[in-house]
Parts: sequence; structure tokens; C-alpha cells
Amino acid sequence: MSKNNSTVIKMDEQVLKYKEDLYEKTVHHLKVTIPKKIAEYQELAKSYGQNSENEQDGQTSKKRKLDSEDYVLMPIEDLIKTNRVIMETHQKFKKAYIELIETFSVIRGWISLNIPRIEDGNNFGVDVQEDIITQITKLEEVYTSLLDGSESYFASRASLVKKILKHKDIEAYRYSLAQVDEKEFTRFSFSYFDLANNYATTYSLIVKNFAKLETPRPTNASNIY
Amino acid sequence: MSKNNSTVIKMDEQVLKYKEDLYEKTVHHLKVTIPKKIAEYQELAKSYGQNSENEQDGQTSKKRKLDSEDYVLMPIEDLIKTNRVIMETHQKFKKAYIELIETFSVIRGWISLNIPRIEDGNNFGVDVQEDIITQITKLEEVYTSLLDGSESYFASRASLVKKILKHKDIEAYRYSLAQVDEKEFTRFSFSYFDLANNYATTYSLIVKNFAKLETPRPTNASNIY
Amino acid sequence: MSKNNSTVIKMDEQVLKYKEDLYEKTVHHLKVTIPKKIAEYQELAKSYGQNSENEQDGQTSKKRKLDSEDYVLMPIEDLIKTNRVIMETHQKFKKAYIELIETFSVIRGWISLNIPRIEDGNNFGVDVQEDIITQITKLEEVYTSLLDGSESYFASRASLVKKILKHKDIEAYRYSLAQVDEKEFTRFSFSYFDLANNYATTYSLIVKNFAKLETPRPTNASNIY
Amino acid sequence: MSKNNSTVIKMDEQVLKYKEDLYEKTVHHLKVTIPKKIAEYQELAKSYGQNSENEQDGQTSKKRKLDSEDYVLMPIEDLIKTNRVIMETHQKFKKAYIELIETFSVIRGWISLNIPRIEDGNNFGVDVQEDIITQITKLEEVYTSLLDGSESYFASRASLVKKILKHKDIEAYRYSLAQVDEKEFTRFSFSYFDLANNYATTYSLIVKNFAKLETPRPTNASNIY
Amino acid sequence: MSKNNSTVIKMDEQVLKYKEDLYEKTVHHLKVTIPKKIAEYQELAKSYGQNSENEQDGQTSKKRKLDSEDYVLMPIEDLIKTNRVIMETHQKFKKAYIELIETFSVIRGWISLNIPRIEDGNNFGVDVQEDIITQITKLEEVYTSLLDGSESYFASRASLVKKILKHKDIEAYRYSLAQVDEKEFTRFSFSYFDLANNYATTYSLIVKNFAKLETPRPTNASNIY
Amino acid sequence: MSKNNSTVIKMDEQVLKYKEDLYEKTVHHLKVTIPKKIAEYQELAKSYGQNSENEQDGQTSKKRKLDSEDYVLMPIEDLIKTNRVIMETHQKFKKAYIELIETFSVIRGWISLNIPRIEDGNNFGVDVQEDIITQITKLEEVYTSLLDGSESYFASRASLVKKILKHKDIEAYRYSLAQVDEKEFTRFSFSYFDLANNYATTYSLIVKNFAKLETPRPTNASNIY
Amino acid sequence: MSKNNSTVIKMDEQVLKYKEDLYEKTVHHLKVTIPKKIAEYQELAKSYGQNSENEQDGQTSKKRKLDSEDYVLMPIEDLIKTNRVIMETHQKFKKAYIELIETFSVIRGWISLNIPRIEDGNNFGVDVQEDIITQITKLEEVYTSLLDGSESYFASRASLVKKILKHKDIEAYRYSLAQVDEKEFTRFSFSYFDLANNYATTYSLIVKNFAKLETPRPTNASNIY
Repeated sequence: MSKNNSTVIKMDEQVLKYKEDLYEKTVHHLKVTIPKKIAEYQELAKSYGQNSENEQDGQTSKKRKLDSEDYVLMPIEDLIKTNRVIMETHQKFKKAYIELIETFSVIRGWISLNIPRIEDGNNFGVDVQEDIITQITKLEEVYTSLLDGSESYFASRASLVKKILKHKDIEAYRYSLAQVDEKEFTRFSFSYFDLANNYATTYSLIVKNFAKLETPRPTNASNIY
Repeated sequence: MSKNNSTVIKMDEQVLKYKEDLYEKTVHHLKVTIPKKIAEYQELAKSYGQNSENEQDGQTSKKRKLDSEDYVLMPIEDLIKTNRVIMETHQKFKKAYIELIETFSVIRGWISLNIPRIEDGNNFGVDVQEDIITQITKLEEVYTSLLDGSESYFASRASLVKKILKHKDIEAYRYSLAQVDEKEFTRFSFSYFDLANNYATTYSLIVKNFAKLETPRPTNASNIY
Repeated sequence: MSKNNSTVIKMDEQVLKYKEDLYEKTVHHLKVTIPKKIAEYQELAKSYGQNSENEQDGQTSKKRKLDSEDYVLMPIEDLIKTNRVIMETHQKFKKAYIELIETFSVIRGWISLNIPRIEDGNNFGVDVQEDIITQITKLEEVYTSLLDGSESYFASRASLVKKILKHKDIEAYRYSLAQVDEKEFTRFSFSYFDLANNYATTYSLIVKNFAKLETPRPTNASNIY
Repeated sequence: MSKNNSTVIKMDEQVLKYKEDLYEKTVHHLKVTIPKKIAEYQELAKSYGQNSENEQDGQTSKKRKLDSEDYVLMPIEDLIKTNRVIMETHQKFKKAYIELIETFSVIRGWISLNIPRIEDGNNFGVDVQEDIITQITKLEEVYTSLLDGSESYFASRASLVKKILKHKDIEAYRYSLAQVDEKEFTRFSFSYFDLANNYATTYSLIVKNFAKLETPRPTNASNIY
Repeated sequence: MSKNNSTVIKMDEQVLKYKEDLYEKTVHHLKVTIPKKIAEYQELAKSYGQNSENEQDGQTSKKRKLDSEDYVLMPIEDLIKTNRVIMETHQKFKKAYIELIETFSVIRGWISLNIPRIEDGNNFGVDVQEDIITQITKLEEVYTSLLDGSESYFASRASLVKKILKHKDIEAYRYSLAQVDEKEFTRFSFSYFDLANNYATTYSLIVKNFAKLETPRPTNASNIY
Repeated sequence: MSKNNSTVIKMDEQVLKYKEDLYEKTVHHLKVTIPKKIAEYQELAKSYGQNSENEQDGQTSKKRKLDSEDYVLMPIEDLIKTNRVIMETHQKFKKAYIELIETFSVIRGWISLNIPRIEDGNNFGVDVQEDIITQITKLEEVYTSLLDGSESYFASRASLVKKILKHKDIEAYRYSLAQVDEKEFTRFSFSYFDLANNYATTYSLIVKNFAKLETPRPTNASNIY
Repeated sequence: MSKNNSTVIKMDEQVLKYKEDLYEKTVHHLKVTIPKKIAEYQELAKSYGQNSENEQDGQTSKKRKLDSEDYVLMPIEDLIKTNRVIMETHQKFKKAYIELIETFSVIRGWISLNIPRIEDGNNFGVDVQEDIITQITKLEEVYTSLLDGSESYFASRASLVKKILKHKDIEAYRYSLAQVDEKEFTRFSFSYFDLANNYATTYSLIVKNFAKLETPRPTNASNIY
């Protein structure tokens, strides 16, 4: 501190405007974007589940998921081609994951800017804010790491294809490749349900505690700027 | 919070409908799906155990599990073929694991959406909800990682077969391959018992505490939406 | 919870029958299987110890354990053969380990199903149940990882044999192989004592606390179904 | 301590001047630099988001982000060229990250030098200082590690290009390269929002608690030199 | 628990006999085996120390430990031979380590079987039992991992000899080999002292607290069976 | 303790003299060395910052930092030459880091020797001593690991140059090398500020608490020897 | 415990004699060995520091430490020769480290054997004993791991020399080798100071608390045997 007097630093108008902008986006997300997303993914989870069942009972022509046996009998030129269905589904899910991260990072941004001055008590509301920021940050980290899913899928596929080409007589490499592709379909079958579930659980946490997020210390509102 | 007034955000009807849908599925799972699964896996554990005993006493013709010695004497072309029994049993267990994950993630979803607003006390019911969500999440993680079992089995088998082909005179690689296959049979012999046991233990935890899961704070039901 | 009334979910008869079946097996294990195992392994530990001593004093013809020097002088064709005694002993111990895991996982299963509803106090009995479940789970994990022992033994042996064949003049690889085999014999010499000791210690813990395992909350038995 | 008398050591004038210099820079950053940065990155986040949307609807000629398919069809000489847009955007972000680190390390330096003598109580203000130093240090560590982003991007790109050149028929390597580049664009799309958000959250924390940072122990100012 | 009555399970006579057998061995170890071992290793530590000093002053003809320089000048055929002294000393120490493990695992076994029923208080004696079991387990783990010492010594020696043969002009590999052998001699010089010290410290802990190990809960002896 | 009487052991005069010598060096460092260093590095940070700005605006002839593009166009013989400026700056910083470690390890040595006898209370002063020893030890560890910086820089540079020579057509390796060199200049730009900041923060901590470091327990000075 | 009576086990006379022997060595170390070592290393630190300064100002003929440039210009046959000064200094330090470990492990041994029976209170003295045993164990671990220093130095040197021979045109490998050697000289320059400092700090801790180490529970000496 300067030797003679202490300096008064106030929240800059531009920053308050930035916070207000995040607040409006937050309200829009809670009233419109998120409920719509939950309904959308609930439907997609149902229809995706239905498709897999039809496929297992042979009702659909276009088989997305091959059986392990197919991988052993398939000529090598087909084997090393990338499965179009897997690639397209990856792109769809990446868009969905980016949307989720963008939506909740706005809400996290607003809550962080709404944390009042550190005080030696009366912190229940601040604990709620910090608890919810932690939950949202965890959610964003899960979906950020899921974004790397396709890179690691292609890397494993490429290295197995390399081994298949090098050791044409070792059947187990082909089965291993079958498992790598099958795992993607298994993950897809959970992904829509998980998206609906994660949106809903985090939405429910925020909505039920919105009053505390807005006014962490009810008595003296002034300290929140 | 907007400078002048605070916004009221209510749980969206679509989300409440989503929660109701999860609730009905949860009740169905507790009354029908899970008890049926426990009985099914209890039987499979008994019959699987019986088969292994008959096989050891040479009563069954079709030997699923070869002895180590077989692996040393077997011609290389047979050695490098994948064991059909192991592959089929993998596929059966993967289906069972996916079913378990789907069943309990629905229940976890409902419980999460039933967690009331964060309050500074009267949280015994919420602690029960969070404790059971943690147990279910752990169960789902165990079975999600078990889904990778077949990929790592084929990868180890392939790399050992490669070494056997390259070092035909090193007996120990063949014994190592025998252990890799034998370990799968040992795992299968535990898997049905573990499935019955895990379904039953988690079911017992949920059923005995269902009242608290439904109504974590008895006095004022309104705060659960 | 459904908006109008709360649902009563009771423990399904099939699950209670499953629990009863585990209970009867538990009593049988405590009264018959385990005491018999402890005596059996106590004897095997003594006789195994006796054999090693006779062998060191050269009394027995068939030397199971070779000295390091033998490994340096031995022709390479013999060196790369797997030691029959080690393989047979592995198979014996694997059977013993599987039996131990099966025996205690049944007891663990029964105790888990006997954990009463979560309550905010009067939990001393439940703590005893959870403490003993933790001890049994640790024991099962130790013996499950010991099951992998033979696979890693053969993998180390194979890779050393490969180096010996490649670098015939490097004596130290042959000594290293001698150590790998010798370590198996050292482990065997402890294994029977450890089996007796682990069975006895876990048995003693369960038997001394059996009343609490059966009736964790003495006053009101109804809550255990 | 010297056997006879204790030595009085006072804060050197040069060090007090150094602290005063950091203090003035801190005030300038809080009043000018940081609010300007928040507004700047808020704008960049909006305009960057807008560009990506236009690009996806094909409105802009210069496509920064290629689709996976482009990577499979592209001739190898183009494939192995580094994407100019990615490189330029890296350089821009590195400048922004260095600025952020320089800005907040000055503020951290001032706060550290303003921590008073260790006392056995009356430490609420010191806890606020230490808490904020921890937050700033975390922020600096995040952006220091982000500085390594471009080195690891080029290393992954180089090693994938090497594999593509070596295994021209393995399509999956090309898709893997597409993911590596696409990931950079996804990171860029978050980076401006994160910069605005991190500046604002840390700024809000410092400004709201500036009084405590300046005068951690209100009663006796003398102990802060 | 069976729906109608609770079962009484008592400690099986065979198990009590097993415990009694461990008890007698424990008393013998404390009165005879261990004091003798401490004296023996105290002597060996002194005489080993004396030999090293004589060797450094050149008094002994047979130099066990070569200087680094010897390794550079030595012809390659001698260099790649394993140092007889190191091998023989390894075998001696392995015998000593196995003895230590066998001795204390018997004592640990007895103490474990003497742990009374879990009670909600009056546990000071039980804490002493568990503390001493932890100390003995740590000691067994240290000496079990030391048993692997010779395997890793030969593995490092073999891989360095391989490099020396491949890069005859790189002096530093020969110095590295000198360090690997020298390190064994340094370890040997500590090993006898450590054996005496570990035996004595653990013995002192057990003897001083023997009353508590025998009778953890003085008042009612019946609960220990 | 010897069976009959207890031995009195006093601090040896040579050790007290050693402590006095450390004390005098400590006072000299706090009054002279450190303030001078803080001022010196504050200046160097400013001038280093100024140079980089001039360079970016092209005012200086001798460009220390090349742009990524230079690395792609540069002939390979120049590319594989080590950047003189980076090497010289490394040597300068290593000297500065060694000085910092020597300066503060003397102060840490004195404080450690001034820790009084362990007592069951009245330990506030001792806690201050131990807290400051921990801070200084952390500082020394940071700068000891920074000393390894140049070894790892040359190792990364060498391995990238090797790849560039092997894969002349893979541009990304050249960009990767550009990043490795650029990272050193970025680190240099922070290093002088960090040196000033770390000296100042640790100095301020020691000076403000010097009375407690000298006399941790005011009442009875005798126990500090 | 045997079913009828409890056994009295007393500390064996040989063990008490062993403890007395450690006690006498401890007193000798505290009165003679350690103070002498502190003075010796204090001197060596000063003279080593003096030599480095003279060398930097070119006063001494025999340059122990070469500059990085020397490594680039030096013919390869000289480069691959091991630096005699580094090797001799390693041997000197190894002797010093072994002495330190032997000295303090004797003291640790005595303290451990002087720990009284575990009691439910009155444990301040025992806490002091355990705290000091922990400090001495940490010191022994630091110097045991430093003993491996020369092995890892020669391993790094050998692998860099291999790379220099393989890639004669990559200058950076020669600079990397210069850093590896320079790091040893930097470590040497700290080692004597650290030896003096570690001896002194541990000595000061033991001497100031010697009364508690000897008589942890003043009231009743009998329980210490």
C-alpha cells in the first residue's frame, strides 16, 4: 500500500456490463436452451436405442455395427477403410459437446462474477456458489476430454490396421479391431442418455438454488456490485 | 443479478416430465428387472460352476478350457486361432454389462433430479441420496471398464502370438498364452456370481432406503418440485 | 417421486431367497470349509518346509530348485525348457486361490445384503459389517492379483530366454533367469503359510463378530427384511 | 543469534521502492489494463464465434477449418504443409497469454510483499491475501502450460505426417491428422471466451477484496512497513 | 440372518490348536531365535566392517571390491564374468531375509488371531496389537522386496555388459558397470547392521508390549477364545 | 541410556562457532546482498523487456529471436547450429540461480541451528522458524530444478534436429524446433522478474519475522545454546 | 495366549548389551565424530568455493571445469574420455555419504531401542523420540539415494557419447554433454556445504533433546529396561 493513503478501486463499468451480458445469457439458457436440449437428447436416446434393437433383430437393412466374425472374413481393403457411420456420429457428438461446454461456461462465468467479497462468516450462499461452480467445471472437463475421443479412436484404429497389414495371419489383431469399433457404438448408445442426464442434473442443481446464486448474502446486497 | 430486480426461474415442465419418466422406469426396475436379473445370474453362476467341475472330471466332451500342456503340443496353426468359447462368452458378458449400466444409470438419473435445494441443515436424507449416487456411479465405472476387457484380451493374445511365431523354440511364450486364455475362463467363473452379487447388494441398498430417496426432507415436500 | 403419492417398494421374495442361500453357505463355510482349509494348509506349509530342508541337505533325489551355478553350466536346450515343478505348483496354488476367493465372496455377499437401512445413529453394528466387508474385499483383491502371478512369471522367463539365445556370452542373463525361477520357489515356500494365516485371521475376525454381522441393530430386527 | 545482543534488521529502502513500483503498476492494471482486456476478448469471442457460424453455412470464401473428408482426398504434398491459420492464431494467443501472466504476476508480487509479520491471530486479512495469491498462481500456471500448446501441436502433427508418409494406404492416419488440426480450432473457439472469463473472475476477486489486500490488519498499520 | 433364529458360531478346535502352535513358536522366537540372530548379525557387521578396512589398506590378498580403474583396464572376457563374491553374498543375505520373514510372520499370525471382538471402546490394547502388526508387516514388506535385489542386479549387469560389448570405445559404460558392482558391496556393508538393528527394534517393541499383545482387554479374558 | 547414570551432552564449541559464522553471513545477506540483487534484477527485467519491444518493432539490428517462418526457410546447416544468444543467456541465469541457492541455504542453515529444544507448548516462534525454513527449501528446490533447464533444452533440440535431418520434407519438425527455441526466450523474459520477485518475497518474509527467528521463545534464552 | 497362564518375556541380556554398545557409540559420535565432521566440511566448503573462484579468474592451471565451447571444439577421442576430476570427487563424496549414514544409523538404532512400552498418555518424550527417528531416517534416505548419483551420471554420459558418435554433425548433443558434466561440478559446489549443514542441523536437534531421548518418561525409569 502506498505509504500515505489507501486507493479506492471500483468495479469498472465495462466489466459490470460484461457481467450483465452473461446474466442475460444465463437466464435464456435456463428458460429456453437447456430444457430444449434435455427433451431433444431424451428423444435421441430413445430412437438410438430402438435402432440398435431393430438392427439386432435384423429388421434394418443398413447394418451400422458389424459382428466380430465379419472382421475376420472381410477382405483387407474393406477392413482398413474407416467406418463412415462412426465418423459421422463422432462429428454429431462433438458439436453437441461443444454446445454443452459453451452453454454451461457462460453460466459458470456469471456465477463467478457474482461471488461477493470474502467475509469471515455468513458464507452459506457463497458455499452454494462455489459448490455449483465446482460441479459445472467438472462437467466441462468431462466433455472437453470427450472431445479428444475421436483422435484417440483414429490413432488406435490406425495402429491396429498397421499390425493387421504386417501380420496377416494373426487373427487376434482383427478381433481387436472389431472391439475398437464396437466400443465406439457402445459409447454412442450411452452418449445421448448421458447428455440428457447431465444437462438435467446440472440444470436441476442451478434452478433449485438460483436464489442463492443471485443473492448469496441476502441482508446487504450492496457488496455484490 | 440484474441491477434492479431478481428473476424467478422455475423447473421447466419438459424437465419435470423427463424426471417422471425416469421415476417410472426406476420403479419398474426395482419391482421387475432387477429381481429377475438376480435370479437369472444366480442360476447361471450355479450352472457355469457345475460345467467347470464336470469338465475337470472329464465328463463333458467339449473341453472349453485347454491345459497348459495342450498349448505346448498344439500345432502353431491351431495355437494362433482365437478360442471360439472365449469370444462368445465375451459377447454374452458385454451384453449383460451394458444392461446393468443402463438399468442403474436410469435410477441414478432419477435420484440426482430428486436432490432438493442445498440447505444449511436437515440434510440427512440428501446425504443418503448422495451416498447411493456414489455407490451406483462406482458400480457403473467398474462395469464400463470391464467392457474394455475383450479389447485388452485380444491385444495381449495378438502380441503373444506374434512372439510365438517369431521365437518358435521359446516354450515359455506358449505357456504365457495358455495363462492369458486360462485367465479369461477364471474371470468368467467369477463373473456370473459377481453380477448376481452386485445387482443384489445395490438393489438392497436402494430398496431399504427408498423412502429417503423419494422424500429426503419429509417436512416440506414443496422444495423438491 | 410421482407428484401425488409415494411408492412402497419391498424386498422381492427371490432376492430374500438369494440372501438366505448365501447365509446357509456362509454358515457351512465357517463350520466346515474354512477350519478344514486352515488345517490342510498348516500341514502343507510344514511338509513343504521339510522338503526344502531335506533338499538343501541333499537328502532328496529329485531336486526341484537348481542352484545359480547349474544355470550357467546347463546346455541351452535344457535352460529354455520350463521347470515342470514350477508349472505344476502354479496350477495347485491357482486352484487354492480361486477356492479362497469363492469362499469369502459368498460371505461378503451375505454381509452386504444384511446391511440395514442407513440411519443417523446406532451404527456401531453397521460399522463392524462395513469394516469386515473391507477386510474381505482386500483379501480377495490380494488373491485375485496373485492369480496373475504365473502369467507374469512366464512372460519374464520368455523374455530372458530370448536374451540368453541372443547374447550367449553374457553370463549375467543366465544368473538373472536363475533368480526368476528361484523367486518362484521362495514364493511357494511362503504361500502355504500365508494361505493358512489369511484364512485363520479372516475367519477369526468373522467368527468373533458374527453376532454383530447377523444383527447389526439389536433393538428393531424388522428393518433388516 | 549472536551470543550477546539481537540485531535489528529493517526493510531496505530499495526494496520498499520496488514494492511501491509494483503497487503503482497494480493500480494501473486494475483501473486500465484489465477492464480493457476483458472488453477486447469479449468482442473477439463474439466475432470468432460469428466467423465459425458463417463458415459452417459456407458464407466465407477462406475456409480456415477443413472437414475430415478433405484430409482423405487431399494430395500428400498439401497434407504435410502446416495450416497457416493455425500457426498465426497460435502466435496471437501466445502474445495474449504472456500479457496475462505479466499482468497478474505484478499484482501477485505486490500482494506477497504486503503480507505482514506472522502473528498468532487476527489473520483474516492475511488469509484473504494468501487465498488470492493462490488463485493468481493457479491462473499463471494454467496459461504458462498453455504456452507449450503449439510445441506439442507441431510435435503431434510431425509424427502423424511421418506415419502418413510411411503408410500411405492407412486412411485412419489421415483422419487422425484431421482431428489434431480440428482440435486446435475447437480450442481457439473457447480461448477468447476463457481469456475474458479468467480476466474478469480474477479481477472481480481482487477488486472486491482490495481493501483487505492493502490493509490486512486494520488496527496497526505499522507492521506492514 | 435366517428369518427365525440366529446361529451360534464358535471358534473351531482345529483353529484354536493352530493359534496355540503359533503362540508356542512366538515364545520360542522371542526367547531364543531372535536374541541369537541379533548377536550373530552384530558380529557379522563388525567383522564385515573390519574386512573392508583391511582391504582398503591393502592388507588382504583377495580383493573382493575392484576400483573403477580396474574396470577400464580389465580385458572384456573378465569384465563380463559375474563377480563370485557378489553372488555368494547375495545367496547368504537371501537366506537371512527369508529367515527374518518366516520368524516375524509367525508372530504376526499369532497377534492377529489374538485380536478380540470389535467393541465400541476399551480398545487401547487392540490399538497396540494393530500398531505392532503394522510395524511387522512393514518389516516383512521391506525384506520381501530386498529378495528381488539379486534379480535386478543381474538384469542391470547383463544390460550394461551388452552395451559394453556393442560400444567398446565408450569408457563410461565400463565405469557405469563398476558403479553397479560397487553399489552391491556398499549395500552389503549396511545389510548386517540393518538386520541386527531391525531384529532388535522390532523385538524390543514386541517384548515391551507383550502383556498387551497377550491380553488386550484385561477385564474379561473370555472374549479372546 | 546406560543402566546407572544419564550423560550430559553439550553443544560443541566448534558447532557454536559454525552457527555464529552462518549468523554473520545471514545478517550480511539481509543488509547487503539481497537488497542489491533485488534492485539489479528489477533493472534487468526492465531492460530485457525494453529490448524485446525494440526487437519486435525492428529497431535493433541483432535479432535474438527468429520467427517460425525463418526456421522453415533457413538452410539446414544453419538450422542445426545452436543459438549463441540462448546459450550465453543460459550461462548467465545459471550463475544467478546458484547465487540465490547459496544465499538462502546459508540463512536456512542458521535458522535450523537456532531451533530450540522441542517443548510441549509455547511453540509459536518455532512454528514461524519451521514455516520460513519450508518456504526457503521450496525456493531452493525450484531454482535447483531450473538449473537442469539447459540440459533438457539441448536434449530436446538435439532430438528434433535429428528428426529434421531424417525427415527433410516434414515442415512441422522445423516449426517444432522454432517453438523449442522461442520457449527459451519466453522463459528468459519472465526469469529476471521472477528472480526479483522471489528474492523480494522471501526477503520480506524473513525481515518482518527476524525477531522470532532470532528468539523463538522470548522468556528463557538459555535453551537456545 | 496359552489357555491357562500368561508368559513373562524379558529383554534378553544379549540385546541389552547390544543396546549399551549402540549407546556408547552414540555418545562418542555426539562428542567427537560429528563436531569434527562439521568443522571438516565447513573448511572443505570454503576451500572448494575458493578454488572455483580462482579457476573462473584463470588463476589455477589445472582447469577442472571445461566451458561448453570446449566441448564443441574438442576432438571426439578426448570428448568420450571420462573426466578424471569428476570421478575422483565422486569417490570422495561416496565415502563421506557412507560415513554419514553409518554414524546416524547407529544413533537411530539406539533411540529406537530406547522407546518405552506403548502407553495411553504421558507420551511427549516418546513423540520427541519418534520425531527425531523420522528426521534421521529422512537424512539417511537422502544420502542413500545420493550414493546412486555416480551410476546415473555415467549412464547419462555413456548414452550421450553414443549419440555424439552416431550423429557427429548435431552440435546440440555436445552441448548436452557439457551440461551433464557441468551439473556434477555444480552439485559438488553445494555438497560440502550441505554435508556441514545436515550434520549440524541433525546434531543440534539430537543434542538439544538428548535428555528426552535418554529418559522419555521421567517418572518411572523401570519401563525402559
